Amino acid sequence: MLRNLCGPVPLWQSPYAKMKSDLGFKFAVCSPVCFPIINPMLNAEIIAIGSEMLTPFRVDTNSLWLTERLNALGIDVKLKTVVGDDEARLEETIRDAMKRSEIVISTGGLGPTEDDITRKIFAQVLKRELTLNEEILEKLRARFAKRNMPMPEINARQALVMNNADILPNPNGTAPGMLIQEGKCTVVLLPGPPREMRPMFDNFVAPVLKQRVGDVLILRRKLTLFGLGESAVDELAAPIYTKYKNPSTTILFKDGQIELHLTVQVTNEAEGRQLLDEVTAQLYGVLGDYLFSQSDDTLEQVVGALLRQHNASVATAESCTGGLLAGRLTEVPGSSDYFIEGVVTYSNEAKMRMLGVSQELLAEHGAVSEPVACAMAEGVRKLAGTTLGIGITGIAGPGGGSEEKPVGLVYMALASENGVTARKFIFPGDRQFIRTLAVNAALDLIRRKLR
Amino acid sequence: MLRNLCGPVPLWQSPYAKMKSDLGFKFAVCSPVCFPIINPMLNAEIIAIGSEMLTPFRVDTNSLWLTERLNALGIDVKLKTVVGDDEARLEETIRDAMKRSEIVISTGGLGPTEDDITRKIFAQVLKRELTLNEEILEKLRARFAKRNMPMPEINARQALVMNNADILPNPNGTAPGMLIQEGKCTVVLLPGPPREMRPMFDNFVAPVLKQRVGDVLILRRKLTLFGLGESAVDELAAPIYTKYKNPSTTILFKDGQIELHLTVQVTNEAEGRQLLDEVTAQLYGVLGDYLFSQSDDTLEQVVGALLRQHNASVATAESCTGGLLAGRLTEVPGSSDYFIEGVVTYSNEAKMRMLGVSQELLAEHGAVSEPVACAMAEGVRKLAGTTLGIGITGIAGPGGGSEEKPVGLVYMALASENGVTARKFIFPGDRQFIRTLAVNAALDLIRRKLR
Repeated sequence: MLRNLCGPVPLWQSPYAKMKSDLGFKFAVCSPVCFPIINPMLNAEIIAIGSEMLTPFRVDTNSLWLTERLNALGIDVKLKTVVGDDEARLEETIRDAMKRSEIVISTGGLGPTEDDITRKIFAQVLKRELTLNEEILEKLRARFAKRNMPMPEINARQALVMNNADILPNPNGTAPGMLIQEGKCTVVLLPGPPREMRPMFDNFVAPVLKQRVGDVLILRRKLTLFGLGESAVDELAAPIYTKYKNPSTTILFKDGQIELHLTVQVTNEAEGRQLLDEVTAQLYGVLGDYLFSQSDDTLEQVVGALLRQHNASVATAESCTGGLLAGRLTEVPGSSDYFIEGVVTYSNEAKMRMLGVSQELLAEHGAVSEPVACAMAEGVRKLAGTTLGIGITGIAGPGGGSEEKPVGLVYMALASENGVTARKFIFPGDRQFIRTLAVNAALDLIRRKLR
Repeated sequence: MLRNLCGPVPLWQSPYAKMKSDLGFKFAVCSPVCFPIINPMLNAEIIAIGSEMLTPFRVDTNSLWLTERLNALGIDVKLKTVVGDDEARLEETIRDAMKRSEIVISTGGLGPTEDDITRKIFAQVLKRELTLNEEILEKLRARFAKRNMPMPEINARQALVMNNADILPNPNGTAPGMLIQEGKCTVVLLPGPPREMRPMFDNFVAPVLKQRVGDVLILRRKLTLFGLGESAVDELAAPIYTKYKNPSTTILFKDGQIELHLTVQVTNEAEGRQLLDEVTAQLYGVLGDYLFSQSDDTLEQVVGALLRQHNASVATAESCTGGLLAGRLTEVPGSSDYFIEGVVTYSNEAKMRMLGVSQELLAEHGAVSEPVACAMAEGVRKLAGTTLGIGITGIAGPGGGSEEKPVGLVYMALASENGVTARKFIFPGDRQFIRTLAVNAALDLIRRKLR
């Protein structure tokens, strides 16, 4: 779930009213003199060409890399298409993209075979002839000769170029790229293999786009939190982020955690950082308790750093999470410095024998109960001789739930030298999601203890 | 890595020569009388809606899952679009898709917030009114009430439905889906979160599409194996699968396991099953030792079933895998029947205290050694009183490796009443991949023991 949150007044100047509605702005044009005038953000579309990306097995990852590069140049990606070796659909896709966007980048379909149709269809849409470029052909032949191979005649197709196109050299492969300026639209044809596409973009496309964009600089920051629902976060954060047009804020929900992405568009890096700091500080003011990272650090990395900082160690006693908490803690290289041991006590017998949970306690309260969670936490802390012990017991489902103890019910407890504290949760979702949330909650419990 | 392996002659009949080239077939039309005549394949387009997938951080993976399901129904995916919270572009995308394709499926954008625009724009294109459905609203309120939370008023938006749409219930979330028949086009709106989208498609969309598709029957079978590299599998399997045009075979590498997907297209189920059985039997002939599943069963499910079948129980002692083996074993509902307990003994001290590994053994061979793996396996078996005990110790990296004991070195041992056996592995890849492969290898060790 995503909220792209922009302030009430668009930053861009009025000639781009159309673009504003594209950006989801609900407000009309404002006088450009009220606000810093930044170059209007250019819009890009990316077209990935190749039938393999229309199978269940392949995803277009080139566009992620390109998006990062384009964003860094101050260019927004507005739409992505994946199309197969399908001439009619590709033609329509290209036409639509060129109508809507200032920059159109395609990847793939520049190979030598029949079904590599990119060149042909772009030429058709752009009404330009494809002619054989002798210089490229020579280079192709030389490339094959160097490897003592005759060039298959179909490869000659890769020397076909459009009139008035800039040829983009491809030192890592056979297919050159092309860059065409058509009216207000910059059209770029890149090869599909990342090790050919990436250097071609960086060396020959980025400089051209940079010139087109001018001095815009885009900085991002990610704040991550756990323990609040999306709407609760929105309620707390909206009064802050809505004050700002720049940075803009996006809220994402991911594996039970919530990410706030701040994006600022400036012409000067120091100014950008200052703006990000300003908004970050205010968001910490209302969400501080829940925010665990303002970098790319994961929750387990934050917990690891806190344990290290406090010279503390931890041991885990898990039931419903079945070892996943220990697994997350040990994702972090070097975690052996603070993670001493874990036990997965699935059976009552194991809870008694390994953790010293008493039979009476289990009989009186049941395995999924606060007293048992506490006894597990204390038991494992004593067993391992650690600063902290954590115990988790719950019902991950799908079976085993009851009216009184439903699927999703999880008790967890944290034991330290000051005693033991417990929390009760009722997590939504299926077995996997309940286990993921429980592990997040346990990590967060440690974080809050050490903060 | 993907190999899409098709026989030399296309199965489809001649009017669909165009489609053949889309599928990457290199061979020309064959006489339709040689082959079963199958209904023309229906075309689908998938539209993923959400600005998060236009950032460098998120990729649309829903479409991969949907493509697999659609292909299985005999439906071809011809184009995929990712569009943000951008009304004009979404509208154009929907219009174009409906013009070109018989089935249009959207995912995402059904949330409660302002920028979840899917409902609104589809209603606009389809010229249908959105009206508040009291029944859905009631269910939404009940869902929140169950968790003792008041429903935020913005959630009421999720009860808006188009006239004459089939409402698709969403037991795993708040947003219902919709299915609309508009002329020749079936339009389907699904929520974005996979755990909501997937069951909704399987339960309410697939049956409708199946009816539309008619008599084409596509049967698939997945064979999964662990312990061989992709090229070794190909060398063994190629002499078999290349004999068959139908079924076609695709080999995929995934999380250290290899999947062979057999796809057969027939008009008669018995005939399809017979063909699949025929190829499967031959593949078992050459790969039998490594194949662990010919259904969708995961390795942990296969191991669980074997443990159950042998009335056996298991306990785990993990070091480098840090609880992930226990986590995988307990992914399976009901695993408490055979998984008794696990320990994560990261420190030497824990290995000694909990598992009875002797100080001498650790000093002489080091923690990452065959004797220590054996002692861990025997120790945890004794501790838990289980049929089997498994011990894992290794170097997951990135640090901690040496000339003699490189990163990726993992010893694992399996203890039973007949004594203990050990294996040494050197796994490639980064920390995460090494840990994943080690967990797979440990599960496979149990499988081979019980087979």
